[in-house]
Amino acid sequence: MTVLALAPPPGTDRRSGATAAPVLTFGSDGVRRRRDRLATEEPLEIRAGGPGEAPLAVAVTMRTPGHDLELAVGFLAAEGLLGDGARPPVAARACAQDPNVVLVALRAPLDRSRLRGRIEVSSSCGVCGHAALDELGDRCGPVADGPRVAPETLIALPDRLRDHQRLFERTGGLHAAALFDERGTLLAVREDVGRHNALDKALGATLLAGPGAAPRPAIAMLSGRASYELVQKAAVAGVPIVCAVSAPSSLAVDAAHRLGVTLVGFLRGERFNVYARPDRIVL
Amino acid sequence: MTVLALAPPPGTDRRSGATAAPVLTFGSDGVRRRRDRLATEEPLEIRAGGPGEAPLAVAVTMRTPGHDLELAVGFLAAEGLLGDGARPPVAARACAQDPNVVLVALRAPLDRSRLRGRIEVSSSCGVCGHAALDELGDRCGPVADGPRVAPETLIALPDRLRDHQRLFERTGGLHAAALFDERGTLLAVREDVGRHNALDKALGATLLAGPGAAPRPAIAMLSGRASYELVQKAAVAGVPIVCAVSAPSSLAVDAAHRLGVTLVGFLRGERFNVYARPDRIVL
Repeated sequence: MTVLALAPPPGTDRRSGATAAPVLTFGSDGVRRRRDRLATEEPLEIRAGGPGEAPLAVAVTMRTPGHDLELAVGFLAAEGLLGDGARPPVAARACAQDPNVVLVALRAPLDRSRLRGRIEVSSSCGVCGHAALDELGDRCGPVADGPRVAPETLIALPDRLRDHQRLFERTGGLHAAALFDERGTLLAVREDVGRHNALDKALGATLLAGPGAAPRPAIAMLSGRASYELVQKAAVAGVPIVCAVSAPSSLAVDAAHRLGVTLVGFLRGERFNVYARPDRIVL
Repeated sequence: MTVLALAPPPGTDRRSGATAAPVLTFGSDGVRRRRDRLATEEPLEIRAGGPGEAPLAVAVTMRTPGHDLELAVGFLAAEGLLGDGARPPVAARACAQDPNVVLVALRAPLDRSRLRGRIEVSSSCGVCGHAALDELGDRCGPVADGPRVAPETLIALPDRLRDHQRLFERTGGLHAAALFDERGTLLAVREDVGRHNALDKALGATLLAGPGAAPRPAIAMLSGRASYELVQKAAVAGVPIVCAVSAPSSLAVDAAHRLGVTLVGFLRGERFNVYARPDRIVL
């Protein structure tokens, strides 16, 4: 009897977001040894501080390396830590000693009242840090009315998202989020092992481009399900329409009604469902 | 022009794990108004304390209501908060005032050194609470060697999981986790909007059944991807084989090597991939 062994995967290729690993494939044709490509998951520590403040570690998130500065800035925006209007930070840079640490220099002192305890975010998490139910609550008021979009605009989004989803095809393990303007023009698309990270990265990308650099995002398109935290992130960032390829949860629909977000689910082929605020869609 | 409106969903049916909500369906046949069933997502606060201690809120998790006591106990076990050997707690009960709070009476004082700051867990999160990278680390040593299972045993698992997946078919939005013994006999299967919750519930079910009530779980089967936290939860609970329908992340494979967990991915049809510790599979 031969006992087959597998070596641990070697180091990550940070540029590609994928990690090569040896794997044994079992099938009707027997066992084959080959190399597989895995979606890379590594922790990122986000530190932030205002003028004259030492940066404070506010979160650790399990993410796919790449676009780390955008992830940090998008996360801080969605947490309401960039101040009113989500003003771009003074600077965001990787730590010279540790590529898994990002330092963000805020324009104003860090608002510690918005820190939800100590935060770690797993590869699929977005609302970490509360210890008790009574700390949960909306982080913003309702999104402003408008714009209105055509159904044809929404129906075209999944294909556009897939056209830009590079990593998923190679690893089978990635979520994607894209931002579009109200006409369906792509503004940013990002991938990550965590669906909330993908949205944070896309939001961070539009923020770091600076005000006026691009049209304001009107639509967030998600490759998977729509959960509570994704609707909340979109609302805090002022994105009024959230579309998902798959199902929303009950709390996502609740939050969409409360925060004035148009929520679309099962956006596939020529069809979609609208769960909240259909008035933004020309039906 | 008619502007269509949607009312927020009414209250949750706690017994079914699904929430009915009005929805507009857009398709080539026009717009229809109908009712949809959503996977219910609500926060659960987990409080725990030892003899003579006031229970402390240790986590809030976004979960699908149902099997809440199992979820709380499984979560505490996976966090290492039930003490060595994950001894079943003295008691676990829902709070009389709030059905979204569970109180767990531990056998020993709460080990506050294992509290990772303050913890909130979203519907897809499992490793919340750390503020800094250096707090991350394995919560247990390697799993003991053995048992060995046949490939045919593994290949049969996805169908068994699906046979028991009730909610997914109705809502399209649920993860499932099942525990099996080494011969592939089903011990527990649970569903949740969060994949980590589904595994916590299944682990909690076997723990609450009491020692000797059922064979020890040898295999955890997951309906989706395998991430770092799921491998870690299985290892802390002493489950040596983790199988997933979809891809593992790079950190999941790293953790499996380090914690001695056999990690199987893409378990579909007659095929699967082995990413770590193939010695437990008779290949």
